[in-house]
Amino acid sequence: MTNFPNDVPDFSKAGGLITAVTQDAQSGEVLMVAYMNREAFEETLATNRVVYYSRSRKRLWRKGEESGNIQQLREVFIDCDADAVLLKVEQIGGAACHEGYRSCFFRKVESTGLQLVGQRVFDPKEVYGKE
Amino acid sequence: MTNFPNDVPDFSKAGGLITAVTQDAQSGEVLMVAYMNREAFEETLATNRVVYYSRSRKRLWRKGEESGNIQQLREVFIDCDADAVLLKVEQIGGAACHEGYRSCFFRKVESTGLQLVGQRVFDPKEVYGKE
Repeated sequence: MTNFPNDVPDFSKAGGLITAVTQDAQSGEVLMVAYMNREAFEETLATNRVVYYSRSRKRLWRKGEESGNIQQLREVFIDCDADAVLLKVEQIGGAACHEGYRSCFFRKVESTGLQLVGQRVFDPKEVYGKE
Repeated sequence: MTNFPNDVPDFSKAGGLITAVTQDAQSGEVLMVAYMNREAFEETLATNRVVYYSRSRKRLWRKGEESGNIQQLREVFIDCDADAVLLKVEQIGGAACHEGYRSCFFRKVESTGLQLVGQRVFDPKEVYGKE
């Protein structure tokens, strides 16, 4: 990424993190939302494989490092105030969610509660060896 | 929203806020990413008009309150760890971004820098009386 301005994205607003929304480049389905620090953002652009920053594990999270379900970067967009990016990706293995669903947004909020709307692509027990 | 579990979404992780990704219900275009506190989330579900929480203004942000470009809620999904929601909306006025673009993600990150890819729907000077 030559000539890429150092001050875009703006990592100063939320403790060094920006928000990343990840969308299937083909279908337009929103797969997940996660966070990136500068290192994750720069590695993602350099390798075209998506790397997030895990807030809970406090370290880089190379998406698919355990499951093999990596995300190949197709396009990146940045929002008006430069604290969020939209990643258009090819989701290898067909599932972004660690629970085995294609999208992390597999539950719909209904007036009666939550309704399961996603289809499981893999069994987390088989992939991660645990529930 | 009767019978809606009190502990979903989980507002405890990020200072009382969850992340909201907003997508055009028809086209699938990701329009913006913003934040909601519990009050914003509950008012959104009760009125079917999207309300965010503005981190900079530290108050509820009824989307479209100045511009008239409100968002009519169509569907809500919640992610696996319950700290993000996906809102499928009808964007009244055709533009979600305060800079007049349909989507806040109107700039593409290229190896040579940022490329403007969005089309302006309105002129912010005319709508807000300022740049």
